[in-house]
Amino acid sequence: MSQQNLSPNATALDQYINDNLDRYIDETIRLCAQPSVSATGYGVRECTAIVAEMIAARGFEVKTYETPGQPVVVGHAKGTSERTFLFYNHYDVQPPEPLELWTTPPFEPTIRDGKIFARGVADDKGEIIARLAAIDAVRAAHGGDLPCNMVFVVEGEEEVSSPNIAQFVQDHLDILAADGALWEGGGVDHEDRPGSVLGFRGIIAVELSVETMSRDAHSGSAHILPSAAWRIVRALTHLKDENERILIPGFYDRVIPPSAADLALIDAQADYEPFLRKNYGVKNFVANRHGKELHTSVFEPTCNIQGIETGYQGPGTKTVIPAKATVKLDFRLVPDQRPEEILELLRRHLDKQGFEDVQIKFHGSMAPFKATEDDPLVRLTQRTAAEVYGVEPRPLVPLGGGSSPAYAFSGPLGGIPVVHAGIGYPNANGHAPDENMRIKDFVNGARHIARLLDGFADL
Amino acid sequence: MSQQNLSPNATALDQYINDNLDRYIDETIRLCAQPSVSATGYGVRECTAIVAEMIAARGFEVKTYETPGQPVVVGHAKGTSERTFLFYNHYDVQPPEPLELWTTPPFEPTIRDGKIFARGVADDKGEIIARLAAIDAVRAAHGGDLPCNMVFVVEGEEEVSSPNIAQFVQDHLDILAADGALWEGGGVDHEDRPGSVLGFRGIIAVELSVETMSRDAHSGSAHILPSAAWRIVRALTHLKDENERILIPGFYDRVIPPSAADLALIDAQADYEPFLRKNYGVKNFVANRHGKELHTSVFEPTCNIQGIETGYQGPGTKTVIPAKATVKLDFRLVPDQRPEEILELLRRHLDKQGFEDVQIKFHGSMAPFKATEDDPLVRLTQRTAAEVYGVEPRPLVPLGGGSSPAYAFSGPLGGIPVVHAGIGYPNANGHAPDENMRIKDFVNGARHIARLLDGFADL
Repeated sequence: MSQQNLSPNATALDQYINDNLDRYIDETIRLCAQPSVSATGYGVRECTAIVAEMIAARGFEVKTYETPGQPVVVGHAKGTSERTFLFYNHYDVQPPEPLELWTTPPFEPTIRDGKIFARGVADDKGEIIARLAAIDAVRAAHGGDLPCNMVFVVEGEEEVSSPNIAQFVQDHLDILAADGALWEGGGVDHEDRPGSVLGFRGIIAVELSVETMSRDAHSGSAHILPSAAWRIVRALTHLKDENERILIPGFYDRVIPPSAADLALIDAQADYEPFLRKNYGVKNFVANRHGKELHTSVFEPTCNIQGIETGYQGPGTKTVIPAKATVKLDFRLVPDQRPEEILELLRRHLDKQGFEDVQIKFHGSMAPFKATEDDPLVRLTQRTAAEVYGVEPRPLVPLGGGSSPAYAFSGPLGGIPVVHAGIGYPNANGHAPDENMRIKDFVNGARHIARLLDGFADL
Repeated sequence: MSQQNLSPNATALDQYINDNLDRYIDETIRLCAQPSVSATGYGVRECTAIVAEMIAARGFEVKTYETPGQPVVVGHAKGTSERTFLFYNHYDVQPPEPLELWTTPPFEPTIRDGKIFARGVADDKGEIIARLAAIDAVRAAHGGDLPCNMVFVVEGEEEVSSPNIAQFVQDHLDILAADGALWEGGGVDHEDRPGSVLGFRGIIAVELSVETMSRDAHSGSAHILPSAAWRIVRALTHLKDENERILIPGFYDRVIPPSAADLALIDAQADYEPFLRKNYGVKNFVANRHGKELHTSVFEPTCNIQGIETGYQGPGTKTVIPAKATVKLDFRLVPDQRPEEILELLRRHLDKQGFEDVQIKFHGSMAPFKATEDDPLVRLTQRTAAEVYGVEPRPLVPLGGGSSPAYAFSGPLGGIPVVHAGIGYPNANGHAPDENMRIKDFVNGARHIARLLDGFADL
């Protein structure tokens, strides 16, 4: 890395984090020792109190907001500039079961081999403490001030799909206003290289169901009695053609094709094909895509069948005409498609094609969102990652194939960029027994985040 | 009924059955008291011995043949003509559970309200005794002789789908040679009118399966990773078009359209539509068929989806691309389609359409078969039914929509006619608790069968 790229306070920030590492490890252990399983509610309230206390200890004004589910902790701190940076994290964790597969108990944090083992340490309590460490380091480097305003959001339902966060954002736009955000879940890959994604596709999940008769019938009447199985198959063929083109009129109207910059980023990506062939035993990819198309086609929205349920599924044969059929679908949406609009277009299309009898059940949605490569916060994140990790970061991914609740912040807050920097690594065992965080990743993550905070005011 | 239609020995036959009714009730009770559950094997061997003894007592030479499953009892008797009549029955019964729903124990035959209650009395032990009674009556009317040769076949696996009977027939064509056959399961409808069906469609049951990946994948990769669910849906759309036309080349080559006589029989059928609408809550029939088409379209072969299994089927949503998909199908075949040929055509068609990856698992087949209205045995059956029951029989059904193992006899034995005459009625509770046979139906069934035996030599 060239010397001129170094963050101005780099040495002070790193030194501060080093000098106080024991304190941060203690805070991590304290936070991880407090269970907070959103699926069951176990320990959740006690955990919000600890999180609120820890953020308040950094001079933040903290308030815990009730939602229809678990509370959201929000902290505010004033900085010396007008710009505001938002941190998104979650204090809830996955259930720790199966307990017998843990080397040490999940809520008794233990240090072994340079790692802290505990449920939630990687996802995402260690990351909360890394951010607090970064705030401390930046404040110290700025003589007790913060260089920008900060909003620290810590929700409690991420592990159960964040059912209330989008509405929470809509209801609290005034207190969440920000110019950029740091999402949870950053870190390094198997080569210890950091990376980031500029955005994610949206999603809308629905269930189509149809009932052609009041009960199943004997297949000796298949020439006259209508089959729900065939009916749902017919409906599906009206949704997507054999070339993967979605047939819903208007579906592509808002689709923005990849920009020249996106295509340049794709050119820099590693070849994905050998990994996919090996890992999934794939012979033919969708629409015979291959090579670079495996990256560019993320800009194509999809219509995926999650599952079909109809008729007899036991061993052998049963001469039955199914009266009911259900198919679960998800559509992955690209910028600037809107889930609520797609739902309307789907209903209209089915009706127009004569499938008024096909019911649609809505199972949730997330909007697509995407920053651009030349966004100053994105550039800062990449540049400081190179500085901290001592390697060139992985090429930016212009659009992730999956979906992220970050959309709930990015769009409603005015299309702000959302970046990733954190403490993860491939063997962190998130959601699994022996979840762990390497202490070196904690240090690097805190250093990286401190540089973002340090540089954000001047972007 | 006009007097001239009366069978010549009608009075003697009826008188004999009346005079010996107590003896036949005793035989029915004895046979039903012996369990013979093919699903479990309970009592089966003991039952074959009783059946063999009862048939031998009528002067038949009886032999019990082993099969890979339960034995088949076959009896032969010589008659005074060259013509041979075959009886098909089965000695096995459905499991009697749930026992607590029986008014009296299933294997303790009990007479109440003019009915005998026992497992198997209607399906089909009472019918076996009715046939023995008919044989006795005919022999008595013919001075100790039988007017035709007889083959009495009683298998032991009908309640488990007769897996061995077709092969048994193929292996024993010499001892089963006949000029006509009486199948099991005749009787009267809710108006006490007897009826018969001239034939049944065939069937071939298969399972199509496809595996596109070695494991399920996250639906964020749906733009590249191939879905088994979509693959099987695509394969299905190549099998049948939206107008119910099956798209397999050669599929219709052997199809014989309904004859003028068939169409005349259909003209005589009652309107089926109100029953189907009420019983199955149907709004739109297949291909918008209605009225008489609900009868004529039985001459169309079908491709029915028994069930589809792929992906996630639990509550809510799961963002998964299914790696495997299976669909169970049955094709109902009309004369003269051949199941083994259809299987070959299906494989060839899938290959030609690019679905070499779709595996076909064969789950069994039955051939179609059909007598004609003007077959002398069919005419005899109808005429004598009118005589015995004192009402015009229901119009002959030219082709039943379902399939029958009678094909295993009819075709291999040279296309012999197979007719129905027996002791059933709609509330017999076959396969259910409180299975029963009305004694009046036993008497009518025996009288009807006696007339068939009596007249068969002269056809």
